[in-house]
Order: sequence, then structure tokens, then C-alpha cells
Amino acid sequence: MSASGLAMETNPALAAFLLCSVLLVIKMYVVAVITGQVRLRKKAFANPEDALRHGGLQNCRSDPDVDRCLRAHRNDMETIYPFLFLGFVYCFLGPNLWLARLHFLVFFLGRLVHTVAYLGKLPAPTRSLAYVLAQLPCVSMALQVAWAAAHHL
Amino acid sequence: MSASGLAMETNPALAAFLLCSVLLVIKMYVVAVITGQVRLRKKAFANPEDALRHGGLQNCRSDPDVDRCLRAHRNDMETIYPFLFLGFVYCFLGPNLWLARLHFLVFFLGRLVHTVAYLGKLPAPTRSLAYVLAQLPCVSMALQVAWAAAHHL
Amino acid sequence: MSASGLAMETNPALAAFLLCSVLLVIKMYVVAVITGQVRLRKKAFANPEDALRHGGLQNCRSDPDVDRCLRAHRNDMETIYPFLFLGFVYCFLGPNLWLARLHFLVFFLGRLVHTVAYLGKLPAPTRSLAYVLAQLPCVSMALQVAWAAAHHL
Repeated sequence: MSASGLAMETNPALAAFLLCSVLLVIKMYVVAVITGQVRLRKKAFANPEDALRHGGLQNCRSDPDVDRCLRAHRNDMETIYPFLFLGFVYCFLGPNLWLARLHFLVFFLGRLVHTVAYLGKLPAPTRSLAYVLAQLPCVSMALQVAWAAAHHL
Repeated sequence: MSASGLAMETNPALAAFLLCSVLLVIKMYVVAVITGQVRLRKKAFANPEDALRHGGLQNCRSDPDVDRCLRAHRNDMETIYPFLFLGFVYCFLGPNLWLARLHFLVFFLGRLVHTVAYLGKLPAPTRSLAYVLAQLPCVSMALQVAWAAAHHL
Repeated sequence: MSASGLAMETNPALAAFLLCSVLLVIKMYVVAVITGQVRLRKKAFANPEDALRHGGLQNCRSDPDVDRCLRAHRNDMETIYPFLFLGFVYCFLGPNLWLARLHFLVFFLGRLVHTVAYLGKLPAPTRSLAYVLAQLPCVSMALQVAWAAAHHL
């Protein structure tokens, strides 16, 4: 990595952030693969052209399990994408290393439990609690970035 | 912030961008909270496990007001997420400070009006106009980034 | 661009990444415009206030072609947004320039074909193959970023 690069060597919070981020992106890719597998297993396709290839037009239909996967994926987009932005900027605010790692770890574990609770149909309020838990470090980072930015206007 | 950091001190456009961005991310979080409140008030849940915890399986159903919140949130994902990327890169193209602030402010206000118009069910075309207004600085920044990138290929 | 900037001059992979990224963001904007045009042509609006402005409340309804546009746009959000993050970080890992360009080009072409196949209703499995093709460079970059980050923890 060049000296003009992201400087992971001199910014250890960044390495922790990037690891958590990329693992969560891969987790989202896994949800997408699971959605495709559920579509094939339940024979429930969103597009006529897919249904035609897999048994006929009657398989162009919705299915509760497919919808569940789509909701899990959508919730990831509502929460993990903002984290990719907030966490990246937060790393350059010079945060305490252990506090930064705590932020990333709480988010990472919260989102992991969220996906397991969603796809595993765990009883409420497991999924909601995991959602709220994961949002806490995001709100904390958002406030810190807003504070720092307001002071540099 | 370290010298190898984002250098908000020497890049005043970045501070304006980060403030607008983070406030819009928080705005998205608020839409998510409102969605949850509407679900509880209208007793309309997407998952059986949530409905079971709140009155019974008959509450696992869709609701026009919940769907409206979901559409507002989705439109945010379609527009605010690209802004987080475009605005960040644009700040490093050395833009005129006042022009950059104008870009960010127009987007910020446009998206704020969009959410108010959507959730408040304001008559058309308020929401559509706010959408188009907010897209203008995004298209402008996209073209400028594409132009700069093409010249460095 | 300042010396503390993104340094496209000294990071040629970044210029290729930014060009592909911004063109794909513009492509997503085009899908949004097409969705609006299909809504007007098919007279199928998601909101009562829009339907009232365009012929009456009976036009507040779903339509297969509108739903298709929405699914294409959603799939873009599931794939292009992570690329914006992964590709950006990957550029700072000091990748081989030609290999980096290959990653970006495969993703760019894969997503272009995906949109054409989706909106053009091309027979399966064209769209699915384009999806898988475009995910390959993303998984490759994700693994490389995770590897580099794990080594800097």
C-alpha cells in the first residue's frame, strides 16, 4: 500500500473496520445465494422467463420463505450500507482504538444475529433486539462524525 | 485527525459534505423508526413471529401506511446511498467551495422535502419535484467525477 | 486535486474504478427514469396522490412491467453498492493495474448485460449468468480486502 493510500499501518482502527465490513458484505452475498436456493427449492420465481426455465409459468409466484429472505436482505441494505460509510469516516476521526473496535464488533455481531434470527424464524423479539443493538454503534458514529464535521465548517 | 487522514482541515468542502451526509443517514434511521411505530399502531407486521408477539397471526398483514414508509425508505436508498459515494469523491476533485456547498445543500433540502412530502401524503407533484431537484446535484457530481476519472485513465 | 487527496495521478487503478462506478450509478439513475416512464405509460402508480394527478384513483395499482423495473433497480442496489465500497478500498491495496482493470471491466459489463437482460425480458439464464459473472470480481476483491485487513489487525 502506498504512502498516499489508506494507511492501514498507521490507522489500526481502519483494519478492524475493513474486516468487519467485508465480512458483512460477504454475509449479504450469502443471503442472496440462499434466496436463489429457496426460489429453486420452493419453485417460486419472480420472473416469467425464470419460471419457464424451471417447470413452467405457474412457478412465477411469491412464496413466504422467499419473501422472508428478501426482507432480511433489504434490512441489511438499510443498515449495513450506512455502516460502510459511517465506519470508514469514523476511522479517520482518530478514535480510541479499543472503543472503535467495540463499535465495529457490536455492529458485526448484531447483524450476524439479525440474519440468523430472520432466516431461522427465531421467536420475537430476538431479531428486533439484534437490530437495535447493531444500530447503537451506528448512531454513536453518526453523532461523532456530525460533531467533527460541524466543527470544521 | 492524523496528517494521513481525511484532512477536513485542508478540505472544507469535505466537512460540508460529511455534515449533510450524516444528517441524511440519521434521517433514514428516523424513517425506519417511524415504520416500526406505524406497524405497532396499525397492527400490521411482516413476520408471523412479530404478529404472534403483538396480538396474533391475523396481524401478519400489509398496510398502506406501512407500505408508504417502506417506499419512502427505499427511495432514500436509491438516492442517498449514491450521494454518499459521489459527494465523497467529488470533494477530492478540488471543487469551488461555494459551488460544492450549493450541491450538498440542494440535495439535503430536496431529500428532506421528499421525505416530508412522502410521509405527509402531500399532493403531487411536491414529492416528485423534490426528487428531481435532489437528483440535479448528483448528476452534476457524477459527470464531474466521470470526466476527471476519464482524464486520468 | 491536492496532494492529500485521492491521488488519482499516482493511483491509476482508482481512475478506472471511479469511471466504472460512476457510469454504473448513472445507469441506475436511468433505470429510475425508465421506471417513472413505465408508470406513466401503463398508468400504474404506487401512491394515491400520484394516481389522482394522472387519471384517478383506479390508477393506484401494481403492474408487471413496473415491478420488473423495481426488481432490476433493487438488484442493482444489492450488487453495485457493495462494489462502490469494495472497489474503492481494493484500489488502495496496491493491486496490479491490469488485474484491477479486469476486475472493474468484468463487473461493469456484467451489470450492463444484467440490466439489458432484465428490462428486455431476455430468456433465462442470460440475466442470472450476468449476475454471477459480475459477482466474481466482487468476491475476489472482498477476499483480498479481508486478507489485507486481517494482516493489519
